[in-house]
Amino acid sequence: MPEHLEAFDDVLAANDEYVKTFDLDGLAPRAARGLAIVTCMDSRIEPLDMLGLKPGDAKIIRNAGARVTEDVLRTLALATHLLGVDRIMVVPHTNCKMASATRDQVIDIVEQASGIDVRSLDFRLVSDQRETLLIDVQKIRSWPFFPPGIAVSGFVYDVGTGRLTAVT
Amino acid sequence: MPEHLEAFDDVLAANDEYVKTFDLDGLAPRAARGLAIVTCMDSRIEPLDMLGLKPGDAKIIRNAGARVTEDVLRTLALATHLLGVDRIMVVPHTNCKMASATRDQVIDIVEQASGIDVRSLDFRLVSDQRETLLIDVQKIRSWPFFPPGIAVSGFVYDVGTGRLTAVT
Repeated sequence: MPEHLEAFDDVLAANDEYVKTFDLDGLAPRAARGLAIVTCMDSRIEPLDMLGLKPGDAKIIRNAGARVTEDVLRTLALATHLLGVDRIMVVPHTNCKMASATRDQVIDIVEQASGIDVRSLDFRLVSDQRETLLIDVQKIRSWPFFPPGIAVSGFVYDVGTGRLTAVT
Repeated sequence: MPEHLEAFDDVLAANDEYVKTFDLDGLAPRAARGLAIVTCMDSRIEPLDMLGLKPGDAKIIRNAGARVTEDVLRTLALATHLLGVDRIMVVPHTNCKMASATRDQVIDIVEQASGIDVRSLDFRLVSDQRETLLIDVQKIRSWPFFPPGIAVSGFVYDVGTGRLTAVT
């Protein structure tokens, strides 16, 4: 094994075990429940569990802050046109670093910890989570490349209680 | 409840049940195992299960094809500098629609099914999955905005067996 793969020894060993009891080989590529969920990369979120779903049910899209970027629209276009998705949930969450730090704070933290100048990056931070969610959902609703009849809503997920609250 | 939310009745009812037994409120925002996983939106992939991880362990980033886009780099910058990530796995999968259809085929399928002209979109389709993975991993390795010492590797996940195979 190449030396740099040692950093992944633990998870590759776990994958060896996973293969032994793997039972998802009968799943189809299409989303069985017609759902796509756009949510945050946050390690506290379990998208399927929180919605009572199982593998095969939904397409899951995740980035920092559950932001509706060009990459997300591209992905949703494929999900809706080719993979059976006809309803989309956008789900940011409480206690999100993306919505609690300012751009200057992030730049300072990175500079002090590593000396790296990240002023040229756009982190797509969020100053008003509710307002940003309204805008991001509207971005999907008004995008002209989706098939007709797609349901789109925005929710906030509470990482302290597991509760989803509809916002739009 | 607003009428358009009816499309989500089933998953919101399931969330009511999830809240009753929710026990993840003690998790910290940082990735406990220092991992970020960039993988596909595909409904057949269970990123935590396949690596023996549990909630709290890893940041999960997902889009169509597990492509390393600007949005993914932005997200990984936050994950590495602010959220404890020091190793990154890029994980596309076998039997991926993104890697089995040509651009012309996708445009034709969409046109015939819905009449929508998507020729102006860049789907970031993949013609050679291995070569694309090498390029995408290199994009992360050579990006100048990560802290030093981040381990980055690329793997292919077999949706028929559950097996991860290291590519780079």
